[in-house]
Amino acid sequence: MPIPRFFCQDLNTEEPSLGESESHHAFRVLRLSAGQEVELFDGRGGVADGTISEATRRSVTVRITGRHPQVPRGKPEVIVAAAPPKGDRFKQMLEKLTEIGISRFIPLKTGRSVVEPRPQRLDRLDATVMSAARQSRQAWLPVIDPVTDLAAVLRHAVECSDRIWLAHPGSSGVARVDRRTTLRSAERDLVLIGPEGGFTSEEVVLISDHGARRLMWPHGILRIETAAVVFAALLLAGAADAPSVSGGSAG
Amino acid sequence: MPIPRFFCQDLNTEEPSLGESESHHAFRVLRLSAGQEVELFDGRGGVADGTISEATRRSVTVRITGRHPQVPRGKPEVIVAAAPPKGDRFKQMLEKLTEIGISRFIPLKTGRSVVEPRPQRLDRLDATVMSAARQSRQAWLPVIDPVTDLAAVLRHAVECSDRIWLAHPGSSGVARVDRRTTLRSAERDLVLIGPEGGFTSEEVVLISDHGARRLMWPHGILRIETAAVVFAALLLAGAADAPSVSGGSAG
Repeated sequence: MPIPRFFCQDLNTEEPSLGESESHHAFRVLRLSAGQEVELFDGRGGVADGTISEATRRSVTVRITGRHPQVPRGKPEVIVAAAPPKGDRFKQMLEKLTEIGISRFIPLKTGRSVVEPRPQRLDRLDATVMSAARQSRQAWLPVIDPVTDLAAVLRHAVECSDRIWLAHPGSSGVARVDRRTTLRSAERDLVLIGPEGGFTSEEVVLISDHGARRLMWPHGILRIETAAVVFAALLLAGAADAPSVSGGSAG
Repeated sequence: MPIPRFFCQDLNTEEPSLGESESHHAFRVLRLSAGQEVELFDGRGGVADGTISEATRRSVTVRITGRHPQVPRGKPEVIVAAAPPKGDRFKQMLEKLTEIGISRFIPLKTGRSVVEPRPQRLDRLDATVMSAARQSRQAWLPVIDPVTDLAAVLRHAVECSDRIWLAHPGSSGVARVDRRTTLRSAERDLVLIGPEGGFTSEEVVLISDHGARRLMWPHGILRIETAAVVFAALLLAGAADAPSVSGGSAG
C-alpha cells in the first residue's frame, strides 16, 4: 500500500493539523494512529513527508519530517468552463477533471443554463476536488471559480492569450480564425462547454469572435460532463489537433 | 426539441411495440401520445422513422413510416476490457463509454479483481447502456460481454488481430513488441484496464507477451472508470500515439 496522503492547507509550520474531512479520512476511514508515516500536499505544488503525532476523532496532527522540492504545475494548463450539469453529474465531473489534472474550473453562466450553483454548493465541491486530488496523487488542486458569465470568461482568456476551444456539436459556419490567438503554441488552453440546450447562436458568434477553434466528437453527442472530461483529456494529452476532433475555427 | 428517439429490438415489423423501459420513458417521462413523430434505433445500425400509434402506461406502439440506410459501425472500433469498479462507478463508466461510442465492453477477471458482477447485474446495466445510446444518438449499442478472464481476452484479441493497449500506471521494463500485431494500422483497438491494485506482474508479462503497447496518463493516477473513458476517447479520436500518453511497448 502506498503511503497515505492528505491535503493540508499550510505546510509552513512544523506540526500542522489536518482539516476536518481529512482528519475524518485518516482516523475513521483509514484508522491511522500516531507513528504512521504520511505524505501531505497543499494543492499548490507543496509536498511534505511527516509522521502522525496525534490522532483523535476531532483532529489529526502531523509532525513534518521533510519537504519535497516545489512541484511545478503540469503543462499544458487546461481550464474548463462549462455550464454545470444537474445534480450528481456536476460532482462526478469535477472529480474526474481533478483526476486528469485540469488547473481551473469555471462554472459558466450562459443564455440557456439551467443550473446555477450557489456559493455553498461550490464550497461543498471543494471536498470532492480535494479527495480526488488525494486519490490521484496530484500536487495541485484545480481552482474552482465562482459562477462567471461567458463574456467575462472570454475577455479574461484573451487578456491571458489562452487558446480558446469551443465544444459545440453540430455547429457550422464561416471559418473565422484570429491568428494571433490560435496559431501559436499555447501556454494554456480554455475549453468552453455549453449547457444541455447548447450555446445560443449569439453566444457562438461571440465565442468565434474571440478566436476560438471548434472541437467536435465524431462518434455521438456527449453530455456536458462527458464532453468536459473527453475534451480536457485530449487537450492535456496534446491531442486536440487530431483530425477527427479538430473542426477548424468556431463559427 | 429534436425528435424523440427510442430503442426497439426489432425494426422489421410494421408496427413494433417498445420494451418496458422505453415505453415508460415515452409515456411517463416525455408524456408522448398517439400521433407523435419518433425515431427508432435497434442498436445494430438500423434506424427508422415512425409515428406513435398507441401509447398506454404498459406499452407504446409505433407505426413505422420510413427506414434509414443501415448505419455502419464507427471506425476505429474500440473495445474496453476493464476490471469493474465498485458500485455506481461501474454504471457511470458504462454510460460514458456508450456515449463516446465504444463497440464492446468486457468485464475483466484478474488476479486482484475485487468486484465480479453477477449476470443479473450485467443485465440491469443493459438499461443504462440503452439510455446512454438513446441520449447520445448512437445507432450501435456496445456489446456487454460476460465476465471473462484476462488470458481468454488476450487470446481472442490476437486471433482477431486487434491492437492491444495496456493502461498501467508506473510499470516499466524491457520493450517487447510483437510487430505483427502492433505496427500495422488496426481495424480494432483493445484497451486493458486493471483493478484498483493494478495488474499483477505475471499479468503484465502475459499482456506484454501478446504484443500490447502501453498507455500512460502523464498528469496523475486515474481511477478505473476515468482511465477507461480517457483512454477509450484517445483511441476513438485516433490520438493514442500522442507522445505524452504513448509509452511504447508494455512490459
